[in-house]
Amino acid sequence: MNLEGLRVMGIDPGLTRCGLSVVQAGRGRQVIPVAVGVVRTPAASDLPERLVRLSHAVREWLDDYEPDVIAMERIFERGNVSTVMHTAHAVGVLILAAAEREIPVHMYTPSEVKKAISGNGRADKKQMTNMITRILGLTEAPKPADAADALAIAVCHCWRAPLIARGLQATTTK
Amino acid sequence: MNLEGLRVMGIDPGLTRCGLSVVQAGRGRQVIPVAVGVVRTPAASDLPERLVRLSHAVREWLDDYEPDVIAMERIFERGNVSTVMHTAHAVGVLILAAAEREIPVHMYTPSEVKKAISGNGRADKKQMTNMITRILGLTEAPKPADAADALAIAVCHCWRAPLIARGLQATTTK
Repeated sequence: MNLEGLRVMGIDPGLTRCGLSVVQAGRGRQVIPVAVGVVRTPAASDLPERLVRLSHAVREWLDDYEPDVIAMERIFERGNVSTVMHTAHAVGVLILAAAEREIPVHMYTPSEVKKAISGNGRADKKQMTNMITRILGLTEAPKPADAADALAIAVCHCWRAPLIARGLQATTTK
Repeated sequence: MNLEGLRVMGIDPGLTRCGLSVVQAGRGRQVIPVAVGVVRTPAASDLPERLVRLSHAVREWLDDYEPDVIAMERIFERGNVSTVMHTAHAVGVLILAAAEREIPVHMYTPSEVKKAISGNGRADKKQMTNMITRILGLTEAPKPADAADALAIAVCHCWRAPLIARGLQATTTK
């Protein structure tokens, strides 16, 4: 199973801040960073306008980087209800953008990402940022946290994809 | 304040079943039914495909009926977690479709809709269906429940819109 060259877009979904990254699978476990950034939509704007802005931004990324696959963090009902709902609306818009281009979407829980990157499903933000900086050979830690998270999700998929392709693991977006 | 001719699309959001309706404001409290239906997406399909189907369907309705405004039921975190999340993803896609056409979206809670239609914020489904059948002068009750709900939300907005326009009431999608 050789996935060399696979281009993965990682998404840490959110409406106020949405982390986006693109990486490319290299040889073995090597992963090459391509792009990372955070899309922000102003909390003062109304929800429809914010969803349009997010949709435009992610479509631009899809057009610019043409990923083969998208890896997204799965959200849970926890914390502030309004924030969870806003994030869930954002996820709908993000998945739609991918689906309209027929790009498959894989979802990973935060602990799956942490375990894949650091070997520990409960790694803290600092450990995760250190690991991702080292794995990608970056000269400095990616900021803000949403950007680092988006990179971690993409790397997680690069390492899990061979297993998924072999049918040893099923991740779904059902 | 005369809103005669205002064309309102009512949406009872959902992924498995999404109720859609179009009504037109007449004189005074008169409301004329234009269209009603339910968009279904198969539970067996994966989430991206379901969101694309829903998005296509609502865009077709928007193109066919050109509503001036959309009234949507506000969802809450209650019941099955997975269903709530699916509905929230659907809401994101529905609001995006409206926003891309610059059609304003107003949100109403279920009890606001019930109160506007029946005078009772806790009216049951049967009472609501009876009222909506009578208000719209339909020869038979609209089915299924999602279709009746979508009509009730649209009628609710027709009756609340004059108040909103006068600034007596603010509904937001923030």
